[in-house]
Amino acid sequence: MNIIEIIDKKRRGLTHTEKEINALVSMMEAGKAHDYQIAAWLMASCISGLDLDETTWLTQAFVNSGKVLDLSHVDGIVVDKHSTGGVGDKTTLALIPLLAASGVKVAKLSGRGLGITGGTIDKLESIPGFNVSLSAQNFVKQIKQIGMAISSQSGDLAPADGKMYALRDVTATVESIPLIAASVISKKVAAGADVIVLDIKYGRGAFMATLEDAKLLASTCREVGKRLNKSISTVISAMNQPLGCAVGNSLEVLEIVKLLKGEGPADLEALTLKLGAVALVCAGAQPDVETAEGALKAHLQDGSALEKFRELVIAQGGDPYFLKDASLLPQPDRVLMIPAKEQAYVADINALEVAKAAKMVGAGRLTKDCPINLGVGVLLHKHIGDPVKPGETLVELYADDNDHRDAVEVLSKAFSFSPEPVSPQPLVDEVILGKILAKRPVVAKG
Amino acid sequence: MNIIEIIDKKRRGLTHTEKEINALVSMMEAGKAHDYQIAAWLMASCISGLDLDETTWLTQAFVNSGKVLDLSHVDGIVVDKHSTGGVGDKTTLALIPLLAASGVKVAKLSGRGLGITGGTIDKLESIPGFNVSLSAQNFVKQIKQIGMAISSQSGDLAPADGKMYALRDVTATVESIPLIAASVISKKVAAGADVIVLDIKYGRGAFMATLEDAKLLASTCREVGKRLNKSISTVISAMNQPLGCAVGNSLEVLEIVKLLKGEGPADLEALTLKLGAVALVCAGAQPDVETAEGALKAHLQDGSALEKFRELVIAQGGDPYFLKDASLLPQPDRVLMIPAKEQAYVADINALEVAKAAKMVGAGRLTKDCPINLGVGVLLHKHIGDPVKPGETLVELYADDNDHRDAVEVLSKAFSFSPEPVSPQPLVDEVILGKILAKRPVVAKG
Repeated sequence: MNIIEIIDKKRRGLTHTEKEINALVSMMEAGKAHDYQIAAWLMASCISGLDLDETTWLTQAFVNSGKVLDLSHVDGIVVDKHSTGGVGDKTTLALIPLLAASGVKVAKLSGRGLGITGGTIDKLESIPGFNVSLSAQNFVKQIKQIGMAISSQSGDLAPADGKMYALRDVTATVESIPLIAASVISKKVAAGADVIVLDIKYGRGAFMATLEDAKLLASTCREVGKRLNKSISTVISAMNQPLGCAVGNSLEVLEIVKLLKGEGPADLEALTLKLGAVALVCAGAQPDVETAEGALKAHLQDGSALEKFRELVIAQGGDPYFLKDASLLPQPDRVLMIPAKEQAYVADINALEVAKAAKMVGAGRLTKDCPINLGVGVLLHKHIGDPVKPGETLVELYADDNDHRDAVEVLSKAFSFSPEPVSPQPLVDEVILGKILAKRPVVAKG
Repeated sequence: MNIIEIIDKKRRGLTHTEKEINALVSMMEAGKAHDYQIAAWLMASCISGLDLDETTWLTQAFVNSGKVLDLSHVDGIVVDKHSTGGVGDKTTLALIPLLAASGVKVAKLSGRGLGITGGTIDKLESIPGFNVSLSAQNFVKQIKQIGMAISSQSGDLAPADGKMYALRDVTATVESIPLIAASVISKKVAAGADVIVLDIKYGRGAFMATLEDAKLLASTCREVGKRLNKSISTVISAMNQPLGCAVGNSLEVLEIVKLLKGEGPADLEALTLKLGAVALVCAGAQPDVETAEGALKAHLQDGSALEKFRELVIAQGGDPYFLKDASLLPQPDRVLMIPAKEQAYVADINALEVAKAAKMVGAGRLTKDCPINLGVGVLLHKHIGDPVKPGETLVELYADDNDHRDAVEVLSKAFSFSPEPVSPQPLVDEVILGKILAKRPVVAKG
């Protein structure tokens, strides 16, 4: 099959066969298709689109390009969760122990952050000694032993996706729902879990700008899931203001500890419980989302989720003492407080500007090899709808010794106010469950 | 300006500014934009289109990327002609001496053939000694001396077009009217002529498949011409059966000699006169196309055009003796005759299949570095509409000693017949003149 013919077909807006999609990916892998040819095909696909069959074939071709993690020896349903990313999004850190406490297995491969703030792996590196690079063997072994493991994404899973993504990034072809879906799902399928829950965020702090796009991405992912015989559920959530209060690596780990004690911010807890509940229902561990949320909430209140988190930290070589003494985590040099100037209601907090301020103080990285400062970030004291009084702290900037007047300026401008009460928009817009797997008895909590 | 932003703009179907087009081309030239980025932009432009301003800016940026031939010291209007290419199209070879005989200057840069058969430069190489590589200096000098010159396209004219074209060829982005227009016109503008006549062909043996596309390309070229203050005329002609009888290099040179003696095939003569007449009118040398056609026809009949051709051959180092003894040109090893089987009318001669047969015997090249056999090709004895009798020769295949049963098969199948008389379609569909330059007195013919 000729690569030019394949590109030409998509240029003319026609639909590929499975053979053509496979040929494209394998020619790319073998170096028989040049980068400029893949780039041309990506642009044609971006503009002309890929239908659900094409997207499924592309996803499968990505999976086939590398290893697939073998979790067949793990007893019970294995769950994985992915978020399209947002400012202050730390639900993964809470979901791992929470789901494990509920008796389902969690196999989580995560990436490092790029763009907004740190990724889950960066956040975990705040914990002294925590090993984020498990071998495939140790990863599976740990899931068998304690029901959960987290490790950084391995390059040998879906490598063709990695190659194509690198090209998309530099050819303005990132914004394509089918290409995003194939990229996300191929990595999840290669990671081997049975139940996959996707948190698809939309809004100015998210990858998808509109609810409409988020719904389209969600339905594409579910449909591809059906075709690949995977249980893929989608939760669509708003990302206009940061999720929870903390933005920055140590700060987010501390917020998770609070959450696991039942003392977390309401929005963060609500979304975490929703995502966890969907996973439990699909894993056959709970009859419905509402009941599942109740069960998860109980794990927060009785200490079992926190205990499971301690177990995770210890299993992966981390020092759990930070759970008692937060000063063991990386610390900022100083904390700058930004007060409210008048009596009003918080009308808006621009997540993107908050992320920008956090990045300016070093909490995020600009390029893949940039080091990040794990101790710095932003801590919100208020959310949209909260009333504020003059002098009351709106937000704190955790920073190093450098001059951060610019970051303070950006952070201040992220807030806007109203003299009238303001109702925040709903956090969760849509929850659609994937296939429900075997109903196993729930492991009774301790 | 960021290359990713430029690509993204075209992906979203937006219109570029002149600054963006210039930035794109200069980044490509400086190696600051990668091939895969240019390829992505090309695909986005191919699908989303470029408007007339964008096309003009791209054309100008191509021109600015290299040298522009300085013809300012040539006395009088200088004419150039370009064809989008077709099977058996050899009008350029006739037009150079014919226009020079009519007192306008001709500065012609041509390419080698790729795809169908040889280009004008390949055809001229059939003539023993003919030098197809003139320096810019000698090119201009010869125009001053004898009123005409032809040389192979120089790489330092519009080099950015060359780079972009090479990428288009391997990324299925050739089929774009604005990109084709920018490519064609930039080379013509860089070649320095005042009057440019474009022969835009459509049909199965041409670059443009439909009359509609040919009209769109023609109007795009004229509009870009206006914006660049160049006189660009367009003639749209059909290319379904070969033009004239000869397809192949020596064969086509011999057909030109016939034409210049007033003994050429009717279709070839008609198109040559039409193109030449348009050039003469735009150059201000004749009042209208019809009168100009008459004047040109007189040059064929009185021997002055042939005399001018002899002058061209001698000026460029060729041996003019072939004008008397055709056996001095490269010869085939043998000539295979294909006869008609029944009494009928020729209903169709598929130009693409004829070209394929010519290529199979070695008259065309497959890749840029392939040698071609200048002596071989196809000689039609019949055209569409001609009546044929059983045993009468339809076509001859000039070939080397190899087995050419496949080529004979292809050539035979190129013909189809009808028991009823058949009217061939009109050869010329549309003639639209560009700006008419200063009306100079015509130099009286000898």
